[in-house]
Amino acid sequence: MKSIVSTTCATLLLVGVASPVLGQPTPGSDPLPSWKEGDVKRAIITFVDAVTTEGSPDYVPPEERIATFDNDGSLWSEKPTYFQLFFAIDQVRKMAANHPDWETTEPFKSALAGDVNGLMATGKEGLAKILASSHANLTAEEFSAAVRDWLATRRHPITNRPYDEMVYQPMLELLAYLREHGFKTFIVSGGGIDFIRVFAEETYGIPPEQVIGSSIAAKFEMRDGIPTIVKRPEGMFIDDKEGKPIGIYQHIGRRPLFAAGNSDGDLQMLQYTTIPRSESDSGRHFGLIVHHTDADREWAYDRDSHVGRLEQALDEAPKRGWRVADMKRDWTRIYPDATQSSDR
Amino acid sequence: MKSIVSTTCATLLLVGVASPVLGQPTPGSDPLPSWKEGDVKRAIITFVDAVTTEGSPDYVPPEERIATFDNDGSLWSEKPTYFQLFFAIDQVRKMAANHPDWETTEPFKSALAGDVNGLMATGKEGLAKILASSHANLTAEEFSAAVRDWLATRRHPITNRPYDEMVYQPMLELLAYLREHGFKTFIVSGGGIDFIRVFAEETYGIPPEQVIGSSIAAKFEMRDGIPTIVKRPEGMFIDDKEGKPIGIYQHIGRRPLFAAGNSDGDLQMLQYTTIPRSESDSGRHFGLIVHHTDADREWAYDRDSHVGRLEQALDEAPKRGWRVADMKRDWTRIYPDATQSSDR
Repeated sequence: MKSIVSTTCATLLLVGVASPVLGQPTPGSDPLPSWKEGDVKRAIITFVDAVTTEGSPDYVPPEERIATFDNDGSLWSEKPTYFQLFFAIDQVRKMAANHPDWETTEPFKSALAGDVNGLMATGKEGLAKILASSHANLTAEEFSAAVRDWLATRRHPITNRPYDEMVYQPMLELLAYLREHGFKTFIVSGGGIDFIRVFAEETYGIPPEQVIGSSIAAKFEMRDGIPTIVKRPEGMFIDDKEGKPIGIYQHIGRRPLFAAGNSDGDLQMLQYTTIPRSESDSGRHFGLIVHHTDADREWAYDRDSHVGRLEQALDEAPKRGWRVADMKRDWTRIYPDATQSSDR
Repeated sequence: MKSIVSTTCATLLLVGVASPVLGQPTPGSDPLPSWKEGDVKRAIITFVDAVTTEGSPDYVPPEERIATFDNDGSLWSEKPTYFQLFFAIDQVRKMAANHPDWETTEPFKSALAGDVNGLMATGKEGLAKILASSHANLTAEEFSAAVRDWLATRRHPITNRPYDEMVYQPMLELLAYLREHGFKTFIVSGGGIDFIRVFAEETYGIPPEQVIGSSIAAKFEMRDGIPTIVKRPEGMFIDDKEGKPIGIYQHIGRRPLFAAGNSDGDLQMLQYTTIPRSESDSGRHFGLIVHHTDADREWAYDRDSHVGRLEQALDEAPKRGWRVADMKRDWTRIYPDATQSSDR
């Protein structure tokens, strides 16, 4: 975990985040050094200037500058499957001794066998069951500790990197650039809210209260005199597709100016953010799609992918004016600490 | 609404809120001018100094400085009943023409008759039904507009003031003082999240994303090509008692340092915030109870009150070290624009 922290901090220094300690960014420095010059980078900078320059017809006051980011495939990788699923599999394995029936029952059987494809084949219900089982009846602290331990010790099966180092350097720069211009940055993820909260602050500079995600219920109880939150395997809220604008409404209560995603799970968030309510509204919103086009440095997938399928949102992009960041074309690097030629 | 805004702004100026425009507060100025000198005021200032002074053994970094405030009875008045109930009654009356059965069915019958006592007698279920009916099937924008209009046009039945001018000046000062010291201030209310969000930013300086409250479900749909959030009369989350620490966990994901409430509905939030997990934890948390003791300037009630009953939390206060602000003794004024001698 150490190296990603220092890399992220270095990045923040490089892009010149405004802070009382660091001072203002150097005028004229490139705020998005890992973005190649081109339409997408230019459009981002033009948009940010338009909504943050006082006197601009599209000026928006700081308190309304909300930016929402999907996580899986938009801020970090999601192949061969969602990273949280690897965590859930590890958790289910740890718990298996107390659940002998899991050995013969799906989705647990596939999970225990480490059969990711078999697990994916159990569909949304199967995945939801595995994810819920991976934290049901744990206290909030026990769950966080399990995620923290997992991130510190486990490696990605293909790249052999720590999972939280497989984050996109250009998106870290974009987050910092938006914050530097008064935006509050949020994660709005189909992944688990409490899973992402464990690393979002250190990795993305996004505090727990600005993470929205799928969740299960919780209960409050006194345990040995200590007020304790215990996670319950019920009341699941799925923060995906239609769930994303609903999560934004319930959690933020304000429509974003900026949304970034990479799959059809982000379609409704992009629509909710960018479709103008009025004429004056039309220049004040920005939709960004991260398009996975780089099989050498990361992965290349869109329409036919089971994880991160991008079809409807890609087709709607020209009509809605969403910008499509082509990873191969638009990004000079993928991960923070990798060489430029081959990141994966 | 105008006068409360300017009064609040004047207040913010008076207490010297740190901002890029206003600069730092004048050294030596009293940050809590409406709090009389005494144990409670001294304890608040001592606590804030301890957790915000670098090098102090109880120092807490800014990102962890979370303060949570109950709303009804803690930031604004709640007599003769919760103000939102007056709004809900007005809403139900507007909708009554489409619901002929309401005239003979409780809790609607009492609501339509304006019989607050009769309505309260229908209990939690009745109240929940009225509150849910007051916004079910409205779009997010329709509901906000209804609240905005109600606040602008309706007056409190006893004081004849706009409801949003019945906020506590000492608590406005406390909110500003905490923010000036790097705290993020949240509302954690049993009242409706979307109701409070309409006025929290203007009235308390608390943005919508820092308001937590009771809620009903919502759905997302396209209406004439516009992405729309519609409120649904189901999936109610009650952000009261045990619901408060759960709401804090789900919404903030971080335990507060500071919590303020005024009734047994705040008991679990106070426990969750202040009961130490470890020895080093014990000086870093503060619980405040607003005790309604001033029948001349506001209302006097505690153990026997149906609305805002304060019994268990008052009994636990000495054991837990919670400070009890006695409105009569500790506050030089109640509402922002009132004379000091008679506020109500």
